[in-house]
Amino acid sequence: MTALPLGSTIGILGDGQLGRMLAGAAARLGFDVVILGPGDHSPASRVAAHAIQADYTDKDALAEFSVRSDLVTLEFENVPVSALNMLLDMGATVHPGPKSLEICQDRHFEKSFARETGVPTADYWVVDSVDDLRAAMRELQGGGILKTRRDGYDGHGQRRLKSGDDPITVYGDLDGVPCILEAMVPFAGEVSVVLARSATGEIKAYDPAENVHTNGILHTSRVPARFDEAVLKSAQSAATQLITALGHVGVLACEFFVLEDGGLLLNEMAPRVHNSGHWTPEACLTGQFEQHIRAIAGWPLGPTDRLFDAEMENLLGEDIYKPLAPGDMVTLYGKREARAGRKMGHVVRKT
Amino acid sequence: MTALPLGSTIGILGDGQLGRMLAGAAARLGFDVVILGPGDHSPASRVAAHAIQADYTDKDALAEFSVRSDLVTLEFENVPVSALNMLLDMGATVHPGPKSLEICQDRHFEKSFARETGVPTADYWVVDSVDDLRAAMRELQGGGILKTRRDGYDGHGQRRLKSGDDPITVYGDLDGVPCILEAMVPFAGEVSVVLARSATGEIKAYDPAENVHTNGILHTSRVPARFDEAVLKSAQSAATQLITALGHVGVLACEFFVLEDGGLLLNEMAPRVHNSGHWTPEACLTGQFEQHIRAIAGWPLGPTDRLFDAEMENLLGEDIYKPLAPGDMVTLYGKREARAGRKMGHVVRKT
Repeated sequence: MTALPLGSTIGILGDGQLGRMLAGAAARLGFDVVILGPGDHSPASRVAAHAIQADYTDKDALAEFSVRSDLVTLEFENVPVSALNMLLDMGATVHPGPKSLEICQDRHFEKSFARETGVPTADYWVVDSVDDLRAAMRELQGGGILKTRRDGYDGHGQRRLKSGDDPITVYGDLDGVPCILEAMVPFAGEVSVVLARSATGEIKAYDPAENVHTNGILHTSRVPARFDEAVLKSAQSAATQLITALGHVGVLACEFFVLEDGGLLLNEMAPRVHNSGHWTPEACLTGQFEQHIRAIAGWPLGPTDRLFDAEMENLLGEDIYKPLAPGDMVTLYGKREARAGRKMGHVVRKT
Repeated sequence: MTALPLGSTIGILGDGQLGRMLAGAAARLGFDVVILGPGDHSPASRVAAHAIQADYTDKDALAEFSVRSDLVTLEFENVPVSALNMLLDMGATVHPGPKSLEICQDRHFEKSFARETGVPTADYWVVDSVDDLRAAMRELQGGGILKTRRDGYDGHGQRRLKSGDDPITVYGDLDGVPCILEAMVPFAGEVSVVLARSATGEIKAYDPAENVHTNGILHTSRVPARFDEAVLKSAQSAATQLITALGHVGVLACEFFVLEDGGLLLNEMAPRVHNSGHWTPEACLTGQFEQHIRAIAGWPLGPTDRLFDAEMENLLGEDIYKPLAPGDMVTLYGKREARAGRKMGHVVRKT
């Protein structure tokens, strides 16, 4: 692996706010950016040297994207693996590669991968039918959450259930798609570790952040997390095991439930920069977006030292019209419609 | 003055690295950017929603630029004042306005403005002819520097002279254009104050940086500067007087000579973000590029607290091919040719 030469063009699959922030980081490192995504006037397309508006599986679009890009990456974990494979067939270099996507796109694959890697998860059952669900509910102690294996985000594709619920109704609520039934975990909190592994194998992790969700959407991330140092070290160490076992190149986010006894269970992974790392550009010498670009480019990773205690708060919908308090460091995503619940921006505060 | 609405488009006159970094900051605040400048594949055009490649006085181009922009600013102080006036005639809002350019584009206007404002400068004489120069050289004690009144940068348009020099030859070296003869000042160092004044009148200054030039080009800026606190406060106070008297909106940089006795003389002002403020995005809660956007948008200025001691080093020409040291925070400008002496990027280090 030689380092990506200065002035190269980085192709980003995905055109949302994460792509916009990645494009900004790439530009600061002197790279050009080309965006491929389906959105019209998308956040990322408006800060890039070139944008191709197309579906991820549009072969002509992928061919143009491949020709324009010296290196391809992604900001969205639900890019079809087939798109990555088409790009690889066209001779593109793609970081992260298909394995990271295949595993992180599917809750069953993700959890079984974690367990094989020695990182525990909540108990769960694979549910492909009402009969599977009925059998799983018999084994389940206490409450559970039925989750679609694929395409879940921000609480979508999930349904809580209790022992008396009717399996037919419950499974129908999720359209009978492949699911897992996950045992509810009595957790004390959630931390996420954002870390990067470079194309050269170098790994650097940020301090674990403590996340608070509201209505299934991340509301705030705080550093330092209020758990024991040993718990936080253990989360970083589990995340390091996972990124290494994945052979992932780029930034990966690992969300863990923290149990009352300090034990950790992997909740989920995102093979990309992550909302719970949005405090890093302000509070660290190198932010997650630049770190991702350095990692995929095979450059030395930047220092992740944290300069101050921080909290990050998401701005949803009309939150962006609230006046800024002195000291609020704000990032807005340039989305044209402030729909309720839509992630429009975020604020970082020194605490 | 109402604040610039979210999602507005900011037009930037100038397409170099300062425009590129301003565009990045504007994007982080959710704005779209349109660039007007003469360059082909220019650094700023490749990170903007739209770019118009044209000369600054191209009326059709200015008309398109004006229609596309909700607010116009600049990254280059030698944009012709006539271009700003055309934009104003077209109904554009322009920050900073023509007064800042008129004064900062001309060394005589700049120095006489500073003196009227109560900020001292080196002794100087206006030179419009060989006779003027001969007379000025008679009055000059010690060495002097003949400088063109306009269009000087990075040591260009300057010529040192001694008492025995022939005025005809010396003036001919600068093509007989309007000049000033400036007395050489025995200074202990140079500091610059980068500060912003918002459209609402709010002012915030960064810590003064100590600058070291090599061959007339800025080499390093360091904070804190190694002068007494009283000297630094006095530089900030003089800069505040100047930005207020100018009625400037946006970032202004004021360079001062520091004399052996701690006295300050204004060297020059730049009505824009400045190379000697390139340490601010890494070392401060709000960097100069975001501060400029906040100022012109009429948003509250961001906190300028410095988080650590820092040094900024310019990367000229092939400097960009040197390997990064651990801890080097690098910004590269995406210029396609690494010509000798050309500003290609910079590094910020925590010291």
